[in-house]
Amino acid sequence: MKHVVQQTVRFGDVDGAGIVYYPRFFNYFHVAFEDFFNRNAGVPYDQILAKERVGFPTVHVETDFGIPLRHGDAIDVEMTVSKIGKSSFTSTYRVLRAGKLCARAEITTATVDLDQMQAIPIPDKYREALERIREDAS
Amino acid sequence: MKHVVQQTVRFGDVDGAGIVYYPRFFNYFHVAFEDFFNRNAGVPYDQILAKERVGFPTVHVETDFGIPLRHGDAIDVEMTVSKIGKSSFTSTYRVLRAGKLCARAEITTATVDLDQMQAIPIPDKYREALERIREDAS
Amino acid sequence: MKHVVQQTVRFGDVDGAGIVYYPRFFNYFHVAFEDFFNRNAGVPYDQILAKERVGFPTVHVETDFGIPLRHGDAIDVEMTVSKIGKSSFTSTYRVLRAGKLCARAEITTATVDLDQMQAIPIPDKYREALERIREDAS
Amino acid sequence: MKHVVQQTVRFGDVDGAGIVYYPRFFNYFHVAFEDFFNRNAGVPYDQILAKERVGFPTVHVETDFGIPLRHGDAIDVEMTVSKIGKSSFTSTYRVLRAGKLCARAEITTATVDLDQMQAIPIPDKYREALERIREDAS
Repeated sequence: MKHVVQQTVRFGDVDGAGIVYYPRFFNYFHVAFEDFFNRNAGVPYDQILAKERVGFPTVHVETDFGIPLRHGDAIDVEMTVSKIGKSSFTSTYRVLRAGKLCARAEITTATVDLDQMQAIPIPDKYREALERIREDAS
Repeated sequence: MKHVVQQTVRFGDVDGAGIVYYPRFFNYFHVAFEDFFNRNAGVPYDQILAKERVGFPTVHVETDFGIPLRHGDAIDVEMTVSKIGKSSFTSTYRVLRAGKLCARAEITTATVDLDQMQAIPIPDKYREALERIREDAS
Repeated sequence: MKHVVQQTVRFGDVDGAGIVYYPRFFNYFHVAFEDFFNRNAGVPYDQILAKERVGFPTVHVETDFGIPLRHGDAIDVEMTVSKIGKSSFTSTYRVLRAGKLCARAEITTATVDLDQMQAIPIPDKYREALERIREDAS
Repeated sequence: MKHVVQQTVRFGDVDGAGIVYYPRFFNYFHVAFEDFFNRNAGVPYDQILAKERVGFPTVHVETDFGIPLRHGDAIDVEMTVSKIGKSSFTSTYRVLRAGKLCARAEITTATVDLDQMQAIPIPDKYREALERIREDAS
């Protein structure tokens, strides 16, 4: 199973060369990440941070940019999970336009106590949600 | 007296039409605002927020955009203060390129206790700093 | 009639004080502006720029920020048009959370030939679309 | 030799968790990249794009985020080049705060003709500039 979010390339996402300024791809990924929690975690993403004081800092990013995106492009951002460790996990994002892969990222996220800024084990309810979009899950 | 900060229009500031995407002008103004405090307030701007828990939310903005800016433009952002009230003040920003006025903004800023998110009187040391860049100050 | 777009305050929209960094409100307004054209102009907004070479630079902004927005807030951005001139028009944006007005902006937009960067009369099809969300329109 | 740019973490760079929202690190890297060309290429970066119609789209990114950055942090962004191919090169960026490594990125950049959006060999003058900050250069 995978989590999919439809997004649109906005005027402000595009740079002076007329294509998406690459740092803005990470916003697309983060929107998919937030929406995954909103729909699957039983707690809205903002409340996980504000109430539960659990945060998900990014520790490693690996991204391939293939086909440039332009203003107005309708994209699907697909999110799956490739690895789930004790206190971190790795998500994979695929950006597709008209079914064609334009960019792909692997992002490793730690799980921390936001008050102490220290790693904690991934809470069970989030682990279970993540398992449901594991790449090899049927 | 006025406070002046030199900035450069970056690649990512420009939009698909090849000119600065107007919301990014407000970043230029905010950089001038932060630097004003860093240089004049006796306390770095970040510490005013983090330690003193005093914040400066924007409550009103009025901006005229005249000459469009392009990637690579070297600009001066001038900041003065036109009004200082009990718990809010109004700053004026002028963006100049080669001495020519390109944009002008009046931004009214409240002073709040960040923990209560309630208006407080402008602390004296900040009021004194603001007075020094008052438009009619000699 | 008014044009309404539902948006969500994202993690990256919020600043160190835990509320939306005010320059990002202008992104919310611009998304409403783009979507207005996408749905009402007969030509997608990106094509107006890329193919017709008509652009809409912002020339004047007036904004009141009332209630601060937080991460996760679901907002409605309402767009109406208050003035339509020969080659410019003024749109009004209202940001509502749970029906409560949080921010309000008036934004005046010129209409230009993007190749010459010169003002042109608002093309009729866009004028007609704008008339439909005029504030006093029934 | 390496190219170093001093930057400051701005209020708007920080997210709801009080640390730099990771996509904004890529702005820091891009500022270093632009400044490298401005100071070393004999042609300002914006003119390379606008006049020479040569562009540098990012094709691969690999980043490790170690120590989180906070509002007001003064950082050094160091840029070196680890690989120079026929039509692409790989730059390494190190973000240091008080001499301590906080983040590290390897970014591979293609060289394209912006009008055709097709790969071209790295022009000699840029190749020579890049050679000067090659990691193993003395």
